[in-house]
Amino acid sequence: MARQALTTRAEDYAQWYLDVIAAADMAEHAPVKGCMIIKPWGYGIWERMQQSLDKAFKETGHENAYFPLFIPKSLLMKEAEHVEGFAPECAVVTHGGGKELEEPLYVRPTSEAIICASYANWVKSWRDLPIKLNQWANVVRWEMRTRLFLRTTEFLWQEGHTVHETHDEAREEVFTMLDVYARFAEEVMAIPVIRGKKSEAEKFPGADDTYCIEAMMQDGKALQAGTSHDLGQNFAKTYGIQFQGRDGTNQHAWSTSWGVSTRLVGALIMAHADDSGMVVPPLLATIQAVVVPIFKGDDEAAAMVADAKAMVAAMATAGVRAKADLRDNLRPGPKFFEWEKKGVPVRIEYGARDKAAGTCIVVRRDTGEKTTLPVASLATDVPRLLAEIQANLYAKAKAHRDARIFDVETYDEFKARIDGGGFFRMRFCGDRAVEARIKEETKATIRCFPLDAQADPGPCAVTGVPTNGVRAIFARAY
Amino acid sequence: MARQALTTRAEDYAQWYLDVIAAADMAEHAPVKGCMIIKPWGYGIWERMQQSLDKAFKETGHENAYFPLFIPKSLLMKEAEHVEGFAPECAVVTHGGGKELEEPLYVRPTSEAIICASYANWVKSWRDLPIKLNQWANVVRWEMRTRLFLRTTEFLWQEGHTVHETHDEAREEVFTMLDVYARFAEEVMAIPVIRGKKSEAEKFPGADDTYCIEAMMQDGKALQAGTSHDLGQNFAKTYGIQFQGRDGTNQHAWSTSWGVSTRLVGALIMAHADDSGMVVPPLLATIQAVVVPIFKGDDEAAAMVADAKAMVAAMATAGVRAKADLRDNLRPGPKFFEWEKKGVPVRIEYGARDKAAGTCIVVRRDTGEKTTLPVASLATDVPRLLAEIQANLYAKAKAHRDARIFDVETYDEFKARIDGGGFFRMRFCGDRAVEARIKEETKATIRCFPLDAQADPGPCAVTGVPTNGVRAIFARAY
Repeated sequence: MARQALTTRAEDYAQWYLDVIAAADMAEHAPVKGCMIIKPWGYGIWERMQQSLDKAFKETGHENAYFPLFIPKSLLMKEAEHVEGFAPECAVVTHGGGKELEEPLYVRPTSEAIICASYANWVKSWRDLPIKLNQWANVVRWEMRTRLFLRTTEFLWQEGHTVHETHDEAREEVFTMLDVYARFAEEVMAIPVIRGKKSEAEKFPGADDTYCIEAMMQDGKALQAGTSHDLGQNFAKTYGIQFQGRDGTNQHAWSTSWGVSTRLVGALIMAHADDSGMVVPPLLATIQAVVVPIFKGDDEAAAMVADAKAMVAAMATAGVRAKADLRDNLRPGPKFFEWEKKGVPVRIEYGARDKAAGTCIVVRRDTGEKTTLPVASLATDVPRLLAEIQANLYAKAKAHRDARIFDVETYDEFKARIDGGGFFRMRFCGDRAVEARIKEETKATIRCFPLDAQADPGPCAVTGVPTNGVRAIFARAY
Repeated sequence: MARQALTTRAEDYAQWYLDVIAAADMAEHAPVKGCMIIKPWGYGIWERMQQSLDKAFKETGHENAYFPLFIPKSLLMKEAEHVEGFAPECAVVTHGGGKELEEPLYVRPTSEAIICASYANWVKSWRDLPIKLNQWANVVRWEMRTRLFLRTTEFLWQEGHTVHETHDEAREEVFTMLDVYARFAEEVMAIPVIRGKKSEAEKFPGADDTYCIEAMMQDGKALQAGTSHDLGQNFAKTYGIQFQGRDGTNQHAWSTSWGVSTRLVGALIMAHADDSGMVVPPLLATIQAVVVPIFKGDDEAAAMVADAKAMVAAMATAGVRAKADLRDNLRPGPKFFEWEKKGVPVRIEYGARDKAAGTCIVVRRDTGEKTTLPVASLATDVPRLLAEIQANLYAKAKAHRDARIFDVETYDEFKARIDGGGFFRMRFCGDRAVEARIKEETKATIRCFPLDAQADPGPCAVTGVPTNGVRAIFARAY
């Protein structure tokens, strides 16, 4: 097996991204336009993301449920803004069971319509509130230009849908879930994020407010890594979610929704992978440590294989997801190369000389650093190393991002610098037409108004109109 | 809340089934024809089923992946038998992104077509084999008459798809997975099953052989609880899964597929529920033990609530999924009734007199038996009790089933007894026309030829033709 080099990030970032996915064998295009096949190494990362998020959802009082894939056209069409946002990108089932359907069914692009219609049946009194459900599901949004993980016609996601007695309670939910997402991104994915509010132009169709977490990729572009929507009473009014309040009056409920999708796997690649391939944060790796025994001939093999298995067993007792690569049709070199491309956090090389010394060579994927460690202490050394790698990946991504957040005072300055990538904090008057013009002229959008921003009064960088001074973050985005 | 009685099994078994689902709040019909909404209490059971099966799949060397929801018409149409079996019940997407599609997309009724087409790209050499993947997914099969969980247009399932170098290895996989399913049914669902082979008429469209596990419901009808298919080289030939063998020759691979679905939740209800509602086996219960404190007035409340929480915490340390029902708008009676309907295995009643004695009343859902137990020993008593309940449910279901398996020697005898329900072991000549006639005349089908059957030569009960004597199991089925 020849050691085929990947396209480097400097050469062609977009091609590098696809090369990493192919080299790590994470996904590929399906024979269906715009759809992808998520292969085991990519799906394993998604599974760990699911487990971690699902635990956090349950700890914050949510339960899982499942609502249908299909939404009758008439039901989807009820919420005007929502329809305008989603109907054009829907896949439509017109035939079923060999017959043309009386009413077309839309394959869900998101499930507010069908879930809110059910909540309307379930909610009668304030005693029935809140309802806090989540579902893990596939959704379909027709896409013209697709990119594996980042933008595919079908993707996997979770969507939380809650309904509350008061706006305050609904808003508390919105921020609780934004916080769940932000902590997950930072602590598990090792990607720093900015929590913010979307502009009017960028918010979810049908929401009062959309909050998001925004991450920076290695090319300085933004990636929206999760959204949490305050839907106000919009969907409750459309679908009739009404209840008798504590004071006996009839009221409309307040709803929220929030979701993250398999595009997070794309974010993970663009945040951590390097010119040698994928780099998986230890907390998301199906295999955290791989042992590659090195031996010549069958005489040596048996003992080395036995040792490798013992090393895996020792690490497993310490909670490490370890594996021994015992394939007999590959030499050690190609094995090292394969696990490097897949981004396994720790590789352990173990040959006859190591055996004699009771040591092994431990290689970190994030830094490439090689250390000789005693075999006897792997069960304590490897967990420590994995924690270090997890922390280092976050620190590296944060340093990269922090060095690329810029304050700009004028639109000219912004236009001059946007090609270089990064997040540009710029005062903005809030006018939708101006926002559209910026997007057209620079391909950059308002990623968010950061929640922790300090007021910094001054003129709008584009129009010169005085602003109260919360700077918006402008960037090009995936 | 009035104590509304369910329809009893004796009165109307079909209505009882629906009443149990409604009373336990497990699922309901969706506003989309034939589809269901799986509510948290029903979905929680499915989640535990998933966890248990997923673990077993991984332990037997499988990995998860994800393939697209949509299958291009031309791809589905390649395998003749498969098309005949599935195409008529497919939902068809004809429009996407606001335009009519050039080629219609079928919503997957099962994924052999799209997965085998991918395997054909992945497999070049015997070194690439086996591939052993599973996916958790939704599938759609248009149904005229639907019943919650048992038969719905969209359902959730897992589908394993493997491809092997030799037929022997593929058959080993088929039986390994049949065994995984059988052990899951018996050890986790507490439902005894018969492992068998399907008749030619009942096998999977496109398979050489279909193996199944068959369970008996309380009304004596059968329910197919899982299938494992030996697909021979059929799909490999259709989709071109070829490899260079060890001997250098070009060969077609051997494939298998196997699956279970949300209909298992229906099986669970019909196997264990009673006239008071659902009965969930402890291993599948989201809540295994519920503590209901009984108190009058706020003075008593605080101490009782604190004790209830302490009891839950003590049980949790012993691995019990426990919950305290602290709702202040329901009296204890309606709470007891609600948890009974939901089928929580153990209910713990705790009032002022119990507090004084340091005891509580523990009620088993399976037998209704009440025992007074020391509060201090709940952490050891409840796990023991849960194990007893799990074992008792299995024993009860097995005794029920074993008493309803009958040997019949003549077709007349069979026709006279089939209305009474049960599994009828009958000699059968194997003729498809005869099998069709039996189905038409009695609504019973061959559930399987049990794998552990002893040869018992004699004449076919219908035609009198001599048979080698493996009796087929005939029954009416869900």
